[in-house]
Amino acid sequence: MTARRRLQDAPIIDAARGETPSRMPVWFMRQAGRSLPEYRTIREGISMLDSCFRPDLLSEITLQPVRRHNVDAAILFSDIVVPLKAAGIGVDIVPGRGPVMESPVRTKEDIVSLAQLDSEVIEISEGITRILQELRSDQALIGFAGAPFTLASYLVEGGPSKNHERTKALMHAEPELWHQLMERLVPSICAFLWTQIDAGVDAVQLFDSWAGFLSERDYREFVLPYSRQIFDELRSSNIPRIHFGVGTSEILGAMSEAGAEVMGVDWRVPLDQAARRITEASGPKVLQGNLDPAILQAGTQVMRQEIARICEEARRAQAEHTACGHIFNLGHGVLPNTAPEAITEAVEIIHSEGVFH
Amino acid sequence: MTARRRLQDAPIIDAARGETPSRMPVWFMRQAGRSLPEYRTIREGISMLDSCFRPDLLSEITLQPVRRHNVDAAILFSDIVVPLKAAGIGVDIVPGRGPVMESPVRTKEDIVSLAQLDSEVIEISEGITRILQELRSDQALIGFAGAPFTLASYLVEGGPSKNHERTKALMHAEPELWHQLMERLVPSICAFLWTQIDAGVDAVQLFDSWAGFLSERDYREFVLPYSRQIFDELRSSNIPRIHFGVGTSEILGAMSEAGAEVMGVDWRVPLDQAARRITEASGPKVLQGNLDPAILQAGTQVMRQEIARICEEARRAQAEHTACGHIFNLGHGVLPNTAPEAITEAVEIIHSEGVFH
Repeated sequence: MTARRRLQDAPIIDAARGETPSRMPVWFMRQAGRSLPEYRTIREGISMLDSCFRPDLLSEITLQPVRRHNVDAAILFSDIVVPLKAAGIGVDIVPGRGPVMESPVRTKEDIVSLAQLDSEVIEISEGITRILQELRSDQALIGFAGAPFTLASYLVEGGPSKNHERTKALMHAEPELWHQLMERLVPSICAFLWTQIDAGVDAVQLFDSWAGFLSERDYREFVLPYSRQIFDELRSSNIPRIHFGVGTSEILGAMSEAGAEVMGVDWRVPLDQAARRITEASGPKVLQGNLDPAILQAGTQVMRQEIARICEEARRAQAEHTACGHIFNLGHGVLPNTAPEAITEAVEIIHSEGVFH
Repeated sequence: MTARRRLQDAPIIDAARGETPSRMPVWFMRQAGRSLPEYRTIREGISMLDSCFRPDLLSEITLQPVRRHNVDAAILFSDIVVPLKAAGIGVDIVPGRGPVMESPVRTKEDIVSLAQLDSEVIEISEGITRILQELRSDQALIGFAGAPFTLASYLVEGGPSKNHERTKALMHAEPELWHQLMERLVPSICAFLWTQIDAGVDAVQLFDSWAGFLSERDYREFVLPYSRQIFDELRSSNIPRIHFGVGTSEILGAMSEAGAEVMGVDWRVPLDQAARRITEASGPKVLQGNLDPAILQAGTQVMRQEIARICEEARRAQAEHTACGHIFNLGHGVLPNTAPEAITEAVEIIHSEGVFH
């Protein structure tokens, strides 16, 4: 029961489908949020999770960077733990720390009794309806969910972790429990994404924040099957599916096997090299990336050089038939202390880059 | 004026020199420190930096894990910022946060007036003398310093950083200033390492904690020349030189060009793959690594499997002539919440592994 708009020449969607976009498409991970003064104003006195469940705020915060920066997509303002919260699991986002669980999930009992999300999240649907009313027909709305491994890490560790050691210990020492936990998370993530798809998002990104902490061997055994289940489940939506993780140079090929059409690449790997790794594993994909977010703080000249280099690497990959498109993005999220003016300027520079055809 | 002992069948040094050691050599990064109750006792009421400058504590803390775990080397207890402190730069290590600078170093004036270390650090020499008195003749003492990029990041950011954006912005926007800063740091790091070498350490490790945050391109332009200067300067010591950074899979080849005989590898890259990348860049080296530290929390059975796999990967590299030795270590430091008994057990398992010859 989708409310999906009919997009007209939306560069991001055209690129994501392997067609030639009318201009170089760009959006930035974390473009909505702390870098914008209008965001800090609107969030004053309202907790992060509350703002994710209020349709008016959800809509306003998602749209702020689109109005300001002229990016080609809005990314739904949300947090990795929103589907857990929506399922009734005790979680709070502590400022300066991140998501903290009321009680960590470590035993068989914890896992089998873990609440699941099995219905639409009305507040998210309503927020999306509002967003779509304001977006132009060439601007896409990208939906968002955290991948099961990243969610599992928050649940097992009980909060943000630098080393994910309890999570890794669980997967290695009690693999059956681990697989049960992942199986229990997949339906909640799918339900959360279907809420967004049914409400009309034009693409979705599955964000595996912590996947780069795993070796390829561990990723393939303990994570890939579940990310693949999610992409399989979303295939019938017929909207582009994007997959991204940070520090994933060793597992880009494995991650691409999960089935997304678009692979996000962090700034550590040149796009043409990334494209070869991806193609070897699962054939050519559309690339998304990969400007180092720190470069947005290095001035116009440096931004120009780095943007030109990245577009050139993407064109090379397309010429070599190891990629079938390029969506410009950062290699990770916008850093909170980035000047909004620099973001706007970067978008202008990127839009002035030629498109491969 | 070296006080260096004559080691007898020290497995770590034999392996580091490409000779066949009498048993599989092992030490663990951060083996000295927070995982040991005897460390927490001795540090009570004493600040981190004070303990690094007290010969009695330095010696005792360095020796604690050697006594307890029967590892083949002691690693000098120290911190990345010790040479800065010794040079008179205002720095403190804040519990739960890390090194914090009195004032960050960001302008030309900051850089030209940055104090340098140009003499022996007596307290460190005295600590080393004490340590060497207690070590067996088959146990090596490994000296330690942070690499210039990692030190520069602390100086520029003013403390620990998640994204190193000011540092990267400086190197890109003001490359001349960046190169001046790196040139200013190299002599201090060399002086700190020569203090240790003259006092008798048997090997040194240059630790570039944050190098994995750089792309290969940036690493080669802004970092490699300075790490190479340090290894060049140490060549005349004739002791094995080890180089390590975390998350460095993309830059292993480039890092190996800095000139160390032994390349530490983090857990994300299988040793045989790492060996091929290193060999392609600068010929076969001795490998050090690379058990995921989280595995020390996953029980005996998992430890056995993972240790066997890693030794097998190292043997394969040696058989393929892409490595000329293997020193067992973790792929990063011991995590603070690791049970000391698990560390001891891991050492026993590693010592029971066969040696390639």
